[in-house]
Amino acid sequence: MQPLEPQDMKQHEHWMRIAMEEAKKAEAIGEVPIGAIVVHGDDVIGRGYNLRETTLDSTAHAEMIAIRQASEALQAWRLLDCTLYVTLEPCPMCAGAIVQSRVPRVVYGTTDPKAGCAGTLMNLLQESRFNHRADVIDGILRDECAAMLTQFFRRLRKKE
Amino acid sequence: MQPLEPQDMKQHEHWMRIAMEEAKKAEAIGEVPIGAIVVHGDDVIGRGYNLRETTLDSTAHAEMIAIRQASEALQAWRLLDCTLYVTLEPCPMCAGAIVQSRVPRVVYGTTDPKAGCAGTLMNLLQESRFNHRADVIDGILRDECAAMLTQFFRRLRKKE
Repeated sequence: MQPLEPQDMKQHEHWMRIAMEEAKKAEAIGEVPIGAIVVHGDDVIGRGYNLRETTLDSTAHAEMIAIRQASEALQAWRLLDCTLYVTLEPCPMCAGAIVQSRVPRVVYGTTDPKAGCAGTLMNLLQESRFNHRADVIDGILRDECAAMLTQFFRRLRKKE
Repeated sequence: MQPLEPQDMKQHEHWMRIAMEEAKKAEAIGEVPIGAIVVHGDDVIGRGYNLRETTLDSTAHAEMIAIRQASEALQAWRLLDCTLYVTLEPCPMCAGAIVQSRVPRVVYGTTDPKAGCAGTLMNLLQESRFNHRADVIDGILRDECAAMLTQFFRRLRKKE
């Protein structure tokens, strides 16, 4: 990846802060703090935060919820000209959903060494045999996105 | 994989026919005919068929719908002791959802040379680095599951 221009970096950080706001909604209800938004032009057309425990639904990841909301907003399953921002690197399911919905660009905060499928364990977003590939930008507000998670798990261990 | 015992084969075929019934519901409304069920003991606790075009939702795959319904039935996101039957090999998103929901066994009908991620392009269901792996049985009613798809696309091309 080419280094980002300062104005691009500033814009990505702006949107990532909004994704972080979503993550904080998860944290507030005891869910692992992960948040995502889908941006189309200057509009946030999809928002989501991790709701797995609350909904007892393994598919209720931030990205899935944001993607479905964005499709509803655009009345289309193809999310053309959209960028998905997510605080944590997508898992295989969410990377697959990004491919399915043809999201052209994904920006994420911190890497996921256990399940990350956008460059860490593998890269499902840039797999030449699939019918869609996305541009990937990583490390936007990396430290802040990572700190939300480490602090959450630290508090959880203390409670236990 | 070891060859299946005749009584096991018969049971898998029984459930696969029910998954095929789901696929036919998709076909009846002009959707690509793919169907899935989640079986727990002797009960079908989740059913789904492809609804992408109808719902304008790229995540509305048969397996996703069946998994979410099964979680609701069990009131748990972990689908322990369940088997997922699906007429077509899972895509990366659905394979990821199977891993997320800890489904211990997946049985599928025909392979997907374009997006199959349960052994064809890759095998996300048996990836040692993920925190869950599933047993996979393929080729149950393979010809019938494949024929539904080829006939659907043949009719579609004729119409066009």
